[in-house]
Amino acid sequence: MNYSDRILNTPSSFIRDILKVLGDPEIISFAGGLPNPISFPIAAMQEAIDNAVGKYGSKLFQYSTTEGLVPLKETIAARYKKRFGLDFSPDDILLTNGSQQALDLIGKVMLNKGDQVLIEEPGYLGAIQALSLCEPQFLSVPLEGDGIDVGKLEETLKNNKVKVMYTVPNFQNPTGLTYSLEKRRAVREVLAKYDTVLVEDDPYGELRFQGESLPYIGAGYLDEQSVLMGSFSKTVTPGMRLGYVVTKNKQLMRYLVTAKQGSDLHTSVFTQYAIYEYLTHNSYEDHIKRIVDLYGRQATAMLNAMDKYFPKTVSYTRPEGGMFMWVTMEKGRSAMDLFNKAMGKKVAFVPGNPFYVGAPDVNTFRLNYTNATEEIIEEGIKRLGSIL
Amino acid sequence: MNYSDRILNTPSSFIRDILKVLGDPEIISFAGGLPNPISFPIAAMQEAIDNAVGKYGSKLFQYSTTEGLVPLKETIAARYKKRFGLDFSPDDILLTNGSQQALDLIGKVMLNKGDQVLIEEPGYLGAIQALSLCEPQFLSVPLEGDGIDVGKLEETLKNNKVKVMYTVPNFQNPTGLTYSLEKRRAVREVLAKYDTVLVEDDPYGELRFQGESLPYIGAGYLDEQSVLMGSFSKTVTPGMRLGYVVTKNKQLMRYLVTAKQGSDLHTSVFTQYAIYEYLTHNSYEDHIKRIVDLYGRQATAMLNAMDKYFPKTVSYTRPEGGMFMWVTMEKGRSAMDLFNKAMGKKVAFVPGNPFYVGAPDVNTFRLNYTNATEEIIEEGIKRLGSIL
Repeated sequence: MNYSDRILNTPSSFIRDILKVLGDPEIISFAGGLPNPISFPIAAMQEAIDNAVGKYGSKLFQYSTTEGLVPLKETIAARYKKRFGLDFSPDDILLTNGSQQALDLIGKVMLNKGDQVLIEEPGYLGAIQALSLCEPQFLSVPLEGDGIDVGKLEETLKNNKVKVMYTVPNFQNPTGLTYSLEKRRAVREVLAKYDTVLVEDDPYGELRFQGESLPYIGAGYLDEQSVLMGSFSKTVTPGMRLGYVVTKNKQLMRYLVTAKQGSDLHTSVFTQYAIYEYLTHNSYEDHIKRIVDLYGRQATAMLNAMDKYFPKTVSYTRPEGGMFMWVTMEKGRSAMDLFNKAMGKKVAFVPGNPFYVGAPDVNTFRLNYTNATEEIIEEGIKRLGSIL
Repeated sequence: MNYSDRILNTPSSFIRDILKVLGDPEIISFAGGLPNPISFPIAAMQEAIDNAVGKYGSKLFQYSTTEGLVPLKETIAARYKKRFGLDFSPDDILLTNGSQQALDLIGKVMLNKGDQVLIEEPGYLGAIQALSLCEPQFLSVPLEGDGIDVGKLEETLKNNKVKVMYTVPNFQNPTGLTYSLEKRRAVREVLAKYDTVLVEDDPYGELRFQGESLPYIGAGYLDEQSVLMGSFSKTVTPGMRLGYVVTKNKQLMRYLVTAKQGSDLHTSVFTQYAIYEYLTHNSYEDHIKRIVDLYGRQATAMLNAMDKYFPKTVSYTRPEGGMFMWVTMEKGRSAMDLFNKAMGKKVAFVPGNPFYVGAPDVNTFRLNYTNATEEIIEEGIKRLGSIL
């Protein structure tokens, strides 16, 4: 049988594959990107579901519009207004099966085979995988401590025809790095000169435990070439799969809706009503604060343990929010080798390799700190330190 | 901005577009493909959700595997065993966001730009739209009263390199036609000679109100080249979006899983647990029987009304199950013109055009009978008859 070129060239997700073998409950896993179960408001969601079924009945179970539930989109727009002063209307928002699906739709709408996509180095592997299905040429620009290298970004945009630039401006996956205000302005100025769509993926933006929330790079500034992605996966539930893609470019939105029609008709309207009802009758702010407080303590525990147990030759990022840290060993070391040793010590992480579209920095790896107690984080980092 | 060729060449869904303008409650609509709300076991689903949350807690809300919930897949496999004697294992099944997503995944895995897809004429427009995103060349073979024209099918397969053949063997959308046992055997024999994947989409198979259930064309016979699609949309809820794709071809299944990872990570695990719990603790058979009894009465009401009010120059199919009938007017008539006239009479249907990949039979249209009472069906058909 002859399969498509695109599937032959799309990597299976390293993370999804290793998550399957991490069944041993004795393993301390810093590998996944799972939100802490504290972030699921289970009782409030049950109540929200009962109320929504009571109020809207069979509408929760019937086919619905591709674009998504207008009151939920109004709620999302109102939150952007409150947090950033941004003016989005419900028509600017399309609800998706998690924000991962937004990547699939953006690829479908924007990319011909061979078109160029620019991504941070290292970058989110789910984006690499989703867009790979459209067979683009990937270009990457390195991240610095305060965001992407703007000089190299401008050079890359000038010397190529980049159709889509993909960024995670807040607490990036995999590095945990956040773009500074200055860097955001600089990237915006550069991008305004090119016919490139800027995709800002912001699944972690609400999870800031340090510093001040910053304006987006494109959203609110580069309207026609700006796409924003958001998600309820990190603040309500990833299991129900609800995300969204936002753009003021009306033609782009029309095409995203057509792509969504063909892809799965619409997102679960049951889920949309349930989350809408939850948001309307609970304090989302208080709920997020509980998650953020926990993640802040967990991040501190991990940093303290790394300061204590890791050799001085090893460096790591100090995130202001989100779920991940990025570790760099001396040149010449291999995180894949370390992973195999770490399995012997029953501790897991994700080697850096799958986060690169070009030659990887093989001496890097990603740590997640949201799914273990402070004590277990210390124990796991101690085990890792013993083989570093 | 330069969008992708694929999106520029993908039609927006005529049905989804007209559904949006059918807001007037006075319109009698035979246009949509909406299941009757009787098919949503709302109280039982609420109980199932409460039980599932009680038993499995945060698992319903957390990220989960791409492949889907094994106990639910065992339940689906057991039903194929009971209904058809088919031996599927959970590993042969991938859970999707409605069966529409299965089409998206099959396209991604199988089709390069320009590869050939064979579809029934007329054929399901959702399949045309989903596969259009992979920019294939569509070929079509006409339907006869008992299934596809086998002579023309063989000729088309011989003179081309068809990669995927898409069929709806039971109560086809849009025609309501069902392949006879002889036709199924003949198609199977022809297909066995070619390297073509047969996709059998069976969303309506459980909804038979007349005659005996028949074996599949490929499933159980052409294992390596057979793909089966199923759905809970017509028997439990379309709003929650749960379907599945089944194949014993292990390499094809691996690629489908990789495509699903990139597309949206996984299907709502909340929905999977809820429907699993519902199926385990309720009589699915009894529930389906209630739907089938209703649809049988509605179909009879529509046929009786057409016999009474339609001129003898107009012919129509007499389905043994499912949700649709197909009407053919005299040559020279236009269903699009009729649609505009029918709007004046406040009655709606779907003109045949969007169901064709080549030149359409413009004198055809589709009627749905599942969403109106027998009285309203008679009234709507009477109105249509007055302008036919």
